[in-house]
Amino acid sequence: ASTVSQMDSGRPRFMDFPYASPPIKDLMIDLISTVESSLDSLLLPCTLPQDVQYFQNQSGTAHASLLLRSGSPSSTIDFILGSWLHCELPTGGALNITSFSSYMNNSTDAPHLVIEFIQSSPTSLVLILDLPPRKDLILHPEYLKTFYEDSELEKQRQVLDKIPEVQPYVSPSLYIRSVFSPTAIVVKVDTSESGGDKLEEILRDEVSNVAKQVLGIWLELCVLGGKRDVGDDEKVWLKKRDSLFKSKSIETDIGSTLPRMFGQEITDRVLGVLQASL
Amino acid sequence: ASTVSQMDSGRPRFMDFPYASPPIKDLMIDLISTVESSLDSLLLPCTLPQDVQYFQNQSGTAHASLLLRSGSPSSTIDFILGSWLHCELPTGGALNITSFSSYMNNSTDAPHLVIEFIQSSPTSLVLILDLPPRKDLILHPEYLKTFYEDSELEKQRQVLDKIPEVQPYVSPSLYIRSVFSPTAIVVKVDTSESGGDKLEEILRDEVSNVAKQVLGIWLELCVLGGKRDVGDDEKVWLKKRDSLFKSKSIETDIGSTLPRMFGQEITDRVLGVLQASL
Repeated sequence: ASTVSQMDSGRPRFMDFPYASPPIKDLMIDLISTVESSLDSLLLPCTLPQDVQYFQNQSGTAHASLLLRSGSPSSTIDFILGSWLHCELPTGGALNITSFSSYMNNSTDAPHLVIEFIQSSPTSLVLILDLPPRKDLILHPEYLKTFYEDSELEKQRQVLDKIPEVQPYVSPSLYIRSVFSPTAIVVKVDTSESGGDKLEEILRDEVSNVAKQVLGIWLELCVLGGKRDVGDDEKVWLKKRDSLFKSKSIETDIGSTLPRMFGQEITDRVLGVLQASL
Repeated sequence: ASTVSQMDSGRPRFMDFPYASPPIKDLMIDLISTVESSLDSLLLPCTLPQDVQYFQNQSGTAHASLLLRSGSPSSTIDFILGSWLHCELPTGGALNITSFSSYMNNSTDAPHLVIEFIQSSPTSLVLILDLPPRKDLILHPEYLKTFYEDSELEKQRQVLDKIPEVQPYVSPSLYIRSVFSPTAIVVKVDTSESGGDKLEEILRDEVSNVAKQVLGIWLELCVLGGKRDVGDDEKVWLKKRDSLFKSKSIETDIGSTLPRMFGQEITDRVLGVLQASL
């Protein structure tokens, strides 16, 4: 089906993931299909313009695709956002960033979801997998208990932590570091000593299962689970916090990568559309 | 002077650090002396009872000392708390925990201070060195900028991060993980391959200087620097947050260690006095 669509339009679709490594492609298709089928009518169709759903730079060395689906008015989802970015590197090789996030709206205080792979060599990548909290965990210990302690997310983090090739990763952005939960998986997988096959093996055998488990916990506990009581005052500051979180996350993440890959004109067009959708 | 005081009372004083390794003892005396002389009349004398200032278990295998000085009514300090705990291990060797914290009151929103060494072998220890934030950094990006980005605390973290024997440490407590700032130094220093002399060398040459720099930043920016405007609403939730932070930190930290070392009776007495002082 993806081949037909490529021939029809002359360009890849979001779900084609034409540049991701096979285990990442398979995993992302699995995760996003699970989200789309679980949420079903809670998600509206993607309304991004064609030239934001897919775009490339003038020289054809950088390609990207975005998917954005807003939640329906009755859902607790603000929107889901997927992206893949591919860029040939001057050194040979390529940089591939593949991500999927879900942002909640202020009818709930349940955590967001973020999944991201940043791969710049065949033998190493950065993996981010977390349910970013929406409340200060020191002021709200019951929130820490519900979403992070009782959910046993820590077990999933520990599965990857035990793998010798997996090391903690520290983002250069202090803001991004502040976003994550205490059970966040923020790691570098480096198989430069054992080769690219080992990286694919870790992705297929360990990372895929952990990512599916974390997604399952998020779907059950944060989206499809019981309704959360959110007071009017709380709605006001959740909206303010989410708004800062969304714009800062997208600015720090996509906004720092796009200019280097696609130049300022395409970046402004894409960020303009995204920010208008938020 | 410390020898005289030991002879006088038959027991070590807090500032004697009789069990800490020499570089940790020297560093703690330097740091606490700096705090006491910088804050001077802003700190009231220690009013802990003698049997909480120093205590030991029945068999004499565990010893501990606490120092608690409240801030004067006009200061921004709630109290400073120092502790050393020493416990002989059944395996031979000993566990030594040496810590110093400062808790702010709600006349300011500036960060707290925490310094802790947990050493259970001659060749490895856990070091915690941080200015724990008092606000949600996502909702308050200007707070992140003032205390963590502009203060260049990250430079200090990176000094230690570059040392091969220094690795990130992940606390088993999700609550403790949530307490730290994005520039927190939460590391394990492991010199089991190069020996105990190397550990002392890293402590003297690198850790001491970093700890003094971080303390200097905290004193200048959080205590002696310009007054922070804190509104009445903010004072209310800062008080609530600080109260949770203090009781949970002391409960998780001292409360989890003391029963195993000193039994429940001594633990109850010590925690009772501490909690009454908060």
